Amino acid sequence: MKLSDLDLILEKAQAASVAMNAYALRRRVALMNAIADEIEALGPELIQTAMRESNLPEARLSGEKARTIFQWRSYAAAVENGYSLDASIDTANPQRTPPKPDIRKTNVALGPVAVFGASNFPFAFSTAGGDTASAIAAGCPVVVKAHPGHPETSQIMADAISRGVAKSGFPEGTFAHIFCDTNEEAQALVSHLVIKAVGFTGSNRGGMALVEVANKRPDPIPVFAEMGSINPVFLLPGKLNTAAAEVAKQYAASLTLGVGQFCTNPGLLICEDGAGLTEFAEALNTEIANILPAPMLNAGIALAYRGSREKVIGQSGVELLSVATSEPTEAQGAATVAMVSGIDFLINDDLQTEVFGPFALIVKCKDASEISAVASKLHGQLTATLLATSEDLATHQELVSIVQSKCGRIIFNNFPTGVEVCKSMHHGGPFPSSSNSQFTSVGADAIKRFVRPLSFQNWPDEFLPEELKNVNPLGIWRTVDNQLTKEAIKL
Amino acid sequence: MKLSDLDLILEKAQAASVAMNAYALRRRVALMNAIADEIEALGPELIQTAMRESNLPEARLSGEKARTIFQWRSYAAAVENGYSLDASIDTANPQRTPPKPDIRKTNVALGPVAVFGASNFPFAFSTAGGDTASAIAAGCPVVVKAHPGHPETSQIMADAISRGVAKSGFPEGTFAHIFCDTNEEAQALVSHLVIKAVGFTGSNRGGMALVEVANKRPDPIPVFAEMGSINPVFLLPGKLNTAAAEVAKQYAASLTLGVGQFCTNPGLLICEDGAGLTEFAEALNTEIANILPAPMLNAGIALAYRGSREKVIGQSGVELLSVATSEPTEAQGAATVAMVSGIDFLINDDLQTEVFGPFALIVKCKDASEISAVASKLHGQLTATLLATSEDLATHQELVSIVQSKCGRIIFNNFPTGVEVCKSMHHGGPFPSSSNSQFTSVGADAIKRFVRPLSFQNWPDEFLPEELKNVNPLGIWRTVDNQLTKEAIKL
Repeated sequence: MKLSDLDLILEKAQAASVAMNAYALRRRVALMNAIADEIEALGPELIQTAMRESNLPEARLSGEKARTIFQWRSYAAAVENGYSLDASIDTANPQRTPPKPDIRKTNVALGPVAVFGASNFPFAFSTAGGDTASAIAAGCPVVVKAHPGHPETSQIMADAISRGVAKSGFPEGTFAHIFCDTNEEAQALVSHLVIKAVGFTGSNRGGMALVEVANKRPDPIPVFAEMGSINPVFLLPGKLNTAAAEVAKQYAASLTLGVGQFCTNPGLLICEDGAGLTEFAEALNTEIANILPAPMLNAGIALAYRGSREKVIGQSGVELLSVATSEPTEAQGAATVAMVSGIDFLINDDLQTEVFGPFALIVKCKDASEISAVASKLHGQLTATLLATSEDLATHQELVSIVQSKCGRIIFNNFPTGVEVCKSMHHGGPFPSSSNSQFTSVGADAIKRFVRPLSFQNWPDEFLPEELKNVNPLGIWRTVDNQLTKEAIKL
Repeated sequence: MKLSDLDLILEKAQAASVAMNAYALRRRVALMNAIADEIEALGPELIQTAMRESNLPEARLSGEKARTIFQWRSYAAAVENGYSLDASIDTANPQRTPPKPDIRKTNVALGPVAVFGASNFPFAFSTAGGDTASAIAAGCPVVVKAHPGHPETSQIMADAISRGVAKSGFPEGTFAHIFCDTNEEAQALVSHLVIKAVGFTGSNRGGMALVEVANKRPDPIPVFAEMGSINPVFLLPGKLNTAAAEVAKQYAASLTLGVGQFCTNPGLLICEDGAGLTEFAEALNTEIANILPAPMLNAGIALAYRGSREKVIGQSGVELLSVATSEPTEAQGAATVAMVSGIDFLINDDLQTEVFGPFALIVKCKDASEISAVASKLHGQLTATLLATSEDLATHQELVSIVQSKCGRIIFNNFPTGVEVCKSMHHGGPFPSSSNSQFTSVGADAIKRFVRPLSFQNWPDEFLPEELKNVNPLGIWRTVDNQLTKEAIKL
């Protein structure tokens, strides 16, 4: 695309931003539900196109479509109930010395947002995905850079959004969808002065390139990049020694779900050496051997999988443990597990590189203190999992504390691959799993990435935004003089 | 200081961080109140030392001491009532397909924080200031780089904090106070891998230097830098033409309060040319002429004031309007007002440079649309003020919308120089007034700068942090299945 086209698109986005600031909140809620309706109304063409472009199976894509619709509707509900506004009011006290003014605070939109979707979720983390939904929920126009892995799918979704925008009477610039042929074009979008924030889901390299562009602007802007991780699983002795075979089965299922193409794929398992591990490794071997290779998102990703897997397996001290017995085609990924000692892991940072696909590295530690050392050495992670008995937890509190400091979500006897869309979900973790550990990209709190607080001092009631007016016309929860209440202000 | 000393200090901070994570919240509340008690108990030596080091008058420093104590106590209350935790719970639904896990989210400490205080608030934004109080409230150990402008004052405060730490049984590393001789030493603190966030109040140059260091780390960390602004005041026609003399008096008082040494000093006034402006300028001239020059924080600041003031006055089209008639000494700052046309302002970005001291530039616009153009051209600001009638507001909604997009706090017929410490205060604005417009450095929400969310999935109740346990032992507000409640979870 030409830069002059980009200028025009962003001029419209800027105009939409001004218009949206003046709309009542209920209009934004209506827009989001209208977009959800449009996506819901899409016929079989959507799923068929996405199947062809992503190799993902129909059931998975149907589920992802439902998830995408739920994201729009649940974020709309969060806007409606006012959670994303964090409205608060401190009333005046003219008798105080000095007089205390009336101060009221709400969250306002940052302005136009650039969204870069992911290859592995053509619906839920792409054109109509969580970043777009949460930015619109925040009141920000969105410019999506279409993912080159599924351009037709993206266009179908973009058209659905645009129909929702038009039917709701929002300006055309509320949403735009652009195709970039080069990294320079994508960078021009992030450098453009109209853009006020960026949402990104993808690789570390891609995310950090955008962070760098954003930091170099005359006015640096926030980049919320979710860049994946290896999602360590700590298999503690009580569990290992009582349920090795059962855990191996569950772990293999989580590891190979969706051909391992989740940012929450549990690609690292840490446990103590011993008879339990031998039993676990044997059971895991049986599971992995029986998993049929399946096509990955595209041939490039399958190639990259084999390359990064071989790189890990080629590191000092790493031995291959299990591999799927059926021969994969060029486009397929074969489940693979390797093993390394705690010592070898501790001295080699390269073993923390994400292998995007159905691959796991087992770190065999000589004792509990080596497990803690491995935990301390880990980079920031989206998730960490403890497979453990309650007794294990009680006796490993120091380890739990270390693990908590490394991740955004900590899981007990469950697996990280499902990322529930709910208020309590945190999807984002310490660097490098995300560029900003203070915000989530899943759940209604994702909206907060695209707002900033604005305080009104001594502002006439009639000109306040509705969420701050005395009568509380929206009927939302507000913090009034440090107390949460839905009551009106009586002056 | 030697780098080996810094390593030792940060080793202790890291150990304190681990210990603090394991403490019950009430211990943190007790610590903060104990520190407030210690500051409260400080004798006249504190004020006398600060008067000598900062040239600030006794009444101002007494007020600032009270404000500082209030910050510690009110942030402690925010910790106690749970606002800074944003605790939420989504309960499990095993019947759903796929089963919905139990997910609970709270805010956890980022880890050790480096704080760089300001020259102009030796108590409230320095060693024992808002950044330190909010970081401790978040559960983070703090390393303060003492401000060279008031080293003895800082040491008295540091000793008070350390006494509070010791009496509360917190580890020594909970708080450290270091003196840096060079910028390199300060940068070594920000680059140190133990440090997880930075709080800064000061100049744009100083703040951006730290941002750059933080961004270059292998794990970039957030820098919350409040870097000042020129705080535009829009004097609209209805007000200008009915209350010029009264407004001139109020404006002169706000502009010269504390010798203009506030980051919220209203250094820019924008209005339409005409008879109203002539009357306003005459009245302002009388006020400014009569203001006695007063000593600035130190000789270097007085020198810098004169230099940056002369630089603005020397710009094309700028004319001197008023200056205090009493001759200032070398160490004093004389109130000064200059004037420039809207056109000359629009073409000269240098006129937006902050002049730290009692200086204002009046921008004389030819009409309402030029006022809007000036507003659109403004850089990000901590505050913006409208001096206006209700009719002015009604007829200037487009201007109001532009001004809102430029600032963190918008004020009606009031002045920005008082920054109320309360939940609804937002002190921080679009770049370059702060490095991160999404967080405040004043009010209890300042705590949120130093936490990140952590989700617990399927976690046993007995091992959950107290704010997430079923029975709600803290009795705080929590979002349970999307509803705010203080109720316990019944399973």
